[in-house]
Amino acid sequence: MNPQPRLVALRHNVFKKNDLLARGLRSRFQQAGVHVISLVSSPGSGKTAFLEKMLTTMRPQFRVAALVGDLATENDAARLARSQAPVRQIITGTVCHLEAEMVQHALEGWDLRDLDFLFIENVGNLVCPASYDLGEELRIVLLSVTEGEDKPLKYPTIFNSADVAVITKSDLAVATEFDWAAAESNIQSVRPGIQTFRLSAKTGDGMAAFIAFVQSRRSAAIASA
Amino acid sequence: MNPQPRLVALRHNVFKKNDLLARGLRSRFQQAGVHVISLVSSPGSGKTAFLEKMLTTMRPQFRVAALVGDLATENDAARLARSQAPVRQIITGTVCHLEAEMVQHALEGWDLRDLDFLFIENVGNLVCPASYDLGEELRIVLLSVTEGEDKPLKYPTIFNSADVAVITKSDLAVATEFDWAAAESNIQSVRPGIQTFRLSAKTGDGMAAFIAFVQSRRSAAIASA
Repeated sequence: MNPQPRLVALRHNVFKKNDLLARGLRSRFQQAGVHVISLVSSPGSGKTAFLEKMLTTMRPQFRVAALVGDLATENDAARLARSQAPVRQIITGTVCHLEAEMVQHALEGWDLRDLDFLFIENVGNLVCPASYDLGEELRIVLLSVTEGEDKPLKYPTIFNSADVAVITKSDLAVATEFDWAAAESNIQSVRPGIQTFRLSAKTGDGMAAFIAFVQSRRSAAIASA
Repeated sequence: MNPQPRLVALRHNVFKKNDLLARGLRSRFQQAGVHVISLVSSPGSGKTAFLEKMLTTMRPQFRVAALVGDLATENDAARLARSQAPVRQIITGTVCHLEAEMVQHALEGWDLRDLDFLFIENVGNLVCPASYDLGEELRIVLLSVTEGEDKPLKYPTIFNSADVAVITKSDLAVATEFDWAAAESNIQSVRPGIQTFRLSAKTGDGMAAFIAFVQSRRSAAIASA
């Protein structure tokens, strides 16, 4: 059964290499004064819709950009380009997560000092991205109300790797009979104390509070630098 | 960047071993006369709700059983046990897919000749399960209307590995403004000619047609054996 001992050893090296690269990226991000936020979730949780709303709303006030990962297609980059923010697509082929090296390559030619916020949308997957540090300051795990309240219990590692949880598609909560208390309790049971937000990128409900939150995180990071 | 050459070689061996085991399972299933159907999808697409409805509806007429894979928790097995059908949970830990060996272990002690249908619910993941044959006769990929019409384009490999596509949560199609024609066109573009079904496990809409379909598949398999 997988993983086998030799595979474990090789994976360990892959992780180690990734961690070193991620550490380098984090230091570059800090020196450039760009606040880097990554998004992880299941496919279809609304990462791209959420990100488009974030970019569009924040752009008049902040210099924002995004990297988006997918196995195939440049559709997300095309969608996000409507926000007028600089966006680059990372195509992973068959790899189910982004790695620090992919982020590093994708940033080539960008002067990070020109940015206030950089968003990195990971491949839609609740397993693989958990183990790969991308050098981000803040990792957001998204859970849509249509997926069900039990997902934190079933995919604990990724919830545990996140700094903040965002419950998306709140406009569909009634239609899906979403149990907010159960979801919150499940999130807290795998990641005690994590801050959670509820929002709908479609209606805009809850977006302002989340944008205020990331702005305050950036201000705090700058103040402590 | 991952995968690296040595990792590729090792992965190749993992796949080869899995394929041999899967071939053995397929032959056992055929000899026992059990029709094995696996389910793959994103987390939260409604695999378990669909499966509970299938088991409950089919049980008066057929001998049905299920294996359910998850990283953590036995919640799905507990849910499915309400159908009164025999159900076993496979806990994968950090592994993002089921493998033939896990299925083989989970079946220990069951006499396959006592079954007409065996369902295998894979871990919720649109990437990893694609490459692992489980010895099933029919692989169903599920896509819920809440995930968006673009998922087949973004996760082509898993749609390509499936025999049938099922669009779930049809009751939410209006609320999510789901574009049926776009979804169908995207599915067909990555897996030309694949048969698709539309249903809602919640309302029961479309379930009878799908159950009739799997019954006809089983009858055809028996006739050709």
